[in-house]
Amino acid sequence: MRRKSDQTQHRIVEAAYFLFYRKGFTRVSMDEIAARAKITKRTLYLYFRSKDDLLASTLRHYSELDRRRLQVIGDRLPPKADQALESVFSQLIEWAGKPRWSGSGFTRLVVELADLPGHPARAIARRAKATTEAWLAEVLKEGRVRLSVIRAREVMLVLEGAMVLMLIHGDRSYGQAGMRAAKRLIR
Amino acid sequence: MRRKSDQTQHRIVEAAYFLFYRKGFTRVSMDEIAARAKITKRTLYLYFRSKDDLLASTLRHYSELDRRRLQVIGDRLPPKADQALESVFSQLIEWAGKPRWSGSGFTRLVVELADLPGHPARAIARRAKATTEAWLAEVLKEGRVRLSVIRAREVMLVLEGAMVLMLIHGDRSYGQAGMRAAKRLIR
Repeated sequence: MRRKSDQTQHRIVEAAYFLFYRKGFTRVSMDEIAARAKITKRTLYLYFRSKDDLLASTLRHYSELDRRRLQVIGDRLPPKADQALESVFSQLIEWAGKPRWSGSGFTRLVVELADLPGHPARAIARRAKATTEAWLAEVLKEGRVRLSVIRAREVMLVLEGAMVLMLIHGDRSYGQAGMRAAKRLIR
Repeated sequence: MRRKSDQTQHRIVEAAYFLFYRKGFTRVSMDEIAARAKITKRTLYLYFRSKDDLLASTLRHYSELDRRRLQVIGDRLPPKADQALESVFSQLIEWAGKPRWSGSGFTRLVVELADLPGHPARAIARRAKATTEAWLAEVLKEGRVRLSVIRAREVMLVLEGAMVLMLIHGDRSYGQAGMRAAKRLIR
């Protein structure tokens, strides 16, 4: 029984993530999420008291996936810092080419909830970005870049800017420009 | 009569901009916009057939304001490129300190409508960003920066990243980091 309950919860979180990422938080209803997870709305509310509650769980789950993915990517990066950044940006550009890519889900959510700084989802998004920045600092440090913490923040700015501008223009050459800029910044 | 009609239209666009910027496009209703503009919903629909229609007019109006503002800022910038960038980022950081600042309105809108690439508002936002980038290229060129078009795109990435990360972290030091990064990039 416990296992079945876990599976249902997982299915709900996956359905919610898919829909939130695709359409944003506001435009998705609990009905849609229940339909996608193939459960009744009543069952959905047994697992999550509210849409906000479900959003928080979804973001926690995806923060954890993000953290693990960064670890996997980090383990495979070339040791030289400029090659490592090339690889990071290449993967970003490849990701941006997927159908229905909508930029960073965390960024998207914060932007959507910009008028609600106290929303619990905001703190989770903030931590996810801080995790990525700390990971970049580690990558640069291993690549023997001086002032790795400062440089990581600068690279992070370029990375975020590249995602936003690839989305706005529908043009992945902004990712290439980001790669060049990041490599110049760590020189 | 003509003048009164223009005034009403202007009041609607201002009310719409205020509410769209504050709460995003989806969460604002035509009722709210009519109430803020102090007109009936019926009158509102005499001026704009739909919320999408009103959004397009609002964005066109603010694109024009943006363009003029860039001109004014540009005329006052110091001639040396690094000082010009310092001034641009300082103004960005100051803006980000205003109550209810929510980043770039155009970026915010595109992110909110990420799943609707054909929405007319997307093209207007795209042009507004291209205008800013071309303006930056002009500023760098006047400051005798080599490869000003390429560098302007890189500075644009940093500028967008700084807005997003100031918003996410509620921390304007990301703007300072952006200023440093932009100055390094044009060296």
